[in-house]
Amino acid sequence: MIRFQLLAEDAAARRGRLETAHGTIETPVFMPVGTAATVKTLEPRDLQALGAGIVLANTYHLYLRPGHERIQRLGRLHRFMSWPGAVLTDSGGFQVFSLGEKGAGRERGGPGLVEIAEEGVTFRSHLDGSRHFLSPERAIEVQEALGADVIMAFDECPPALADRAYHELSLARTQRWLVRCREAWREIEAREGPRCALFGIAQGGLFGDLRARAIEEAAALDLPGYALGGYAVGETPAEMWDGVARDAPRLPREKPRYLMGVGTPEDLLAGIAAGVDLFDCVLPTRTARNGLLFTSRGKLVIRNARYADDERPADPECGCYACRTFTRAYLRHLFKAGEILALRANTLHNLHFYLSLMADARRAIEEGRFAAFRAERLAAWRADGDG
Amino acid sequence: MIRFQLLAEDAAARRGRLETAHGTIETPVFMPVGTAATVKTLEPRDLQALGAGIVLANTYHLYLRPGHERIQRLGRLHRFMSWPGAVLTDSGGFQVFSLGEKGAGRERGGPGLVEIAEEGVTFRSHLDGSRHFLSPERAIEVQEALGADVIMAFDECPPALADRAYHELSLARTQRWLVRCREAWREIEAREGPRCALFGIAQGGLFGDLRARAIEEAAALDLPGYALGGYAVGETPAEMWDGVARDAPRLPREKPRYLMGVGTPEDLLAGIAAGVDLFDCVLPTRTARNGLLFTSRGKLVIRNARYADDERPADPECGCYACRTFTRAYLRHLFKAGEILALRANTLHNLHFYLSLMADARRAIEEGRFAAFRAERLAAWRADGDG
Ligand SMILES: [Zn+2]
Ligand SMILES: [Zn+2]
Repeated sequence: MIRFQLLAEDAAARRGRLETAHGTIETPVFMPVGTAATVKTLEPRDLQALGAGIVLANTYHLYLRPGHERIQRLGRLHRFMSWPGAVLTDSGGFQVFSLGEKGAGRERGGPGLVEIAEEGVTFRSHLDGSRHFLSPERAIEVQEALGADVIMAFDECPPALADRAYHELSLARTQRWLVRCREAWREIEAREGPRCALFGIAQGGLFGDLRARAIEEAAALDLPGYALGGYAVGETPAEMWDGVARDAPRLPREKPRYLMGVGTPEDLLAGIAAGVDLFDCVLPTRTARNGLLFTSRGKLVIRNARYADDERPADPECGCYACRTFTRAYLRHLFKAGEILALRANTLHNLHFYLSLMADARRAIEEGRFAAFRAERLAAWRADGDG
Repeated sequence: MIRFQLLAEDAAARRGRLETAHGTIETPVFMPVGTAATVKTLEPRDLQALGAGIVLANTYHLYLRPGHERIQRLGRLHRFMSWPGAVLTDSGGFQVFSLGEKGAGRERGGPGLVEIAEEGVTFRSHLDGSRHFLSPERAIEVQEALGADVIMAFDECPPALADRAYHELSLARTQRWLVRCREAWREIEAREGPRCALFGIAQGGLFGDLRARAIEEAAALDLPGYALGGYAVGETPAEMWDGVARDAPRLPREKPRYLMGVGTPEDLLAGIAAGVDLFDCVLPTRTARNGLLFTSRGKLVIRNARYADDERPADPECGCYACRTFTRAYLRHLFKAGEILALRANTLHNLHFYLSLMADARRAIEEGRFAAFRAERLAAWRADGDG
């Protein structure tokens, strides 16, 4: 189980500490995404060297391959992936719903491999087309087998631009699912002892009243933590920042607050300002593999010809292994030549950037200067870079 | 420049020491291949941790991308790739000739992008079709710009199964090219001071008299080291082992002896037994990326279903990071999921296997028990494994 302490506040921003059975995590924190039980290109020792205390793994992917029962037999996620730190799993819902709902007039795009019912969701695997069923109970059971320190409620995350009627219908069902998730989780805990902390998720799109109701109902269930889902799913950054600034402070003050699947460095600072404690996003790792580097002076597209003879490190202010060791010219050469080391070096750098940003933000909150810190960083990122 | 000492002999096997401006290398040694100035998937610090003292880089690839003049501007290879150890470059000839000779009745397959003349070789880039010329003088100039510790003569390496007439014609030209390489190298050394040590290459296919003549003529040029080229190019392992056993002892005793592009663990032991000091091959790194692991009990094909629940390390007798950290079940999962970490973990393991094998062989030679050591290893590799 987990314990959360609030150490300091600076306006709405919070400096906290999350204790887990797999280490203590200083918040606000960014969780690198390890979809298939590996943060792509990195080893566990790399993550430790980067100072990552918690990583996210995706239930949908692991359920399909290699299977949650296999991972359970092999000692659950920590032992399977040889990761001594904390793990958070999502419920699988987000990926399942991304497969696209079946039938005419559906709200979602995608190949239409999903049927949604009150009981749960039937879907076909993107790997082999095999048929599967996921429900609140099943999502909790699978996550418990995977053995993460924090598990997430099974919810539907509608596209931001779905209409109000769909958001109301979806949210009502998600709220009923949340009650079922809690029951399933309490039954497992009663049988096997406390191990995984269940976080509730509040949806509601960009509708403030729906969000408020979702948060109030979820808070009444007194779960170990709460998340905002349904951001960064099609709305503009400004819409997201406004929504998060409105919703995050409504989440229970004494519980950890998690903004799911967000985001850019700018998004993280906006979320921290709103009082968010946990973040995850594929952005730093995915863009790294596409050759985009986040630096103290803005973004850098390493394939650009202007770096062919550039002997500077990717970010002269960065202390990561890649910046201590390689020039932009060499990183560009590796990327152009399709070398795996390019992907790895870029990933090490981008995660170092994200994790350092969070460490700096924590210090700024402790020292009561987060707003100034945020403004400085935003200005610096706009100073230069490849746009 | 380099200095070579012979420390011990055990029948034809030799235990030596190669001193370079970038470290001292204990021989026999295996050189990991870093085609595009990176040993695929690994960082310089990984190579250092593995105990690699010298790596090979490919002149053909680096000449085309990013260009030898760019690498020279960026501080030559060591600084460009941030590698403090020694580097050996091939001449580019092998890759150029692999492009396939142009014209009817040619000896080689391939797309036919090469025209061979006495002066040198005209070829088209496999990257963009651009036209280039490589000659003995040009190959030395390019390698000198790259700045390796050991550079190789420009030669033709005919397919093993080319007929005797072609081997005679090709060898005679290669021998004339060797004299030109030596002249070009001495001119550069005279102008810029000693930096790169030029190794001659003896060809001759499977014809013992041609090999003997090639070696005798090359030895008369008193170069810093000598290589056997033209092995592992289509002949059977037994033909190669016989040829190397016959040819290697004929190479100058006081100079380092290099068997180019060879080979399997069995091949390395055969080469060491014949008195070879240096080896290189893409095999351990390439097969790693295809999921084939070399272990103390034979080969292991990690994708096999039998490893899906196998909690043992890839090789229980191996001390590499991958074996200390990951189970076969996890490595199989990573490989099946197409994760980059699979390629990297397998590469770390296979190179550890090769480099440990060489360290063990060095000890066995020192202790005068190399023949027994070789027999034990060959028996153990046949004990188990995926064939
Ligand atoms: Zn960096
Ligand atoms: Zn190993």
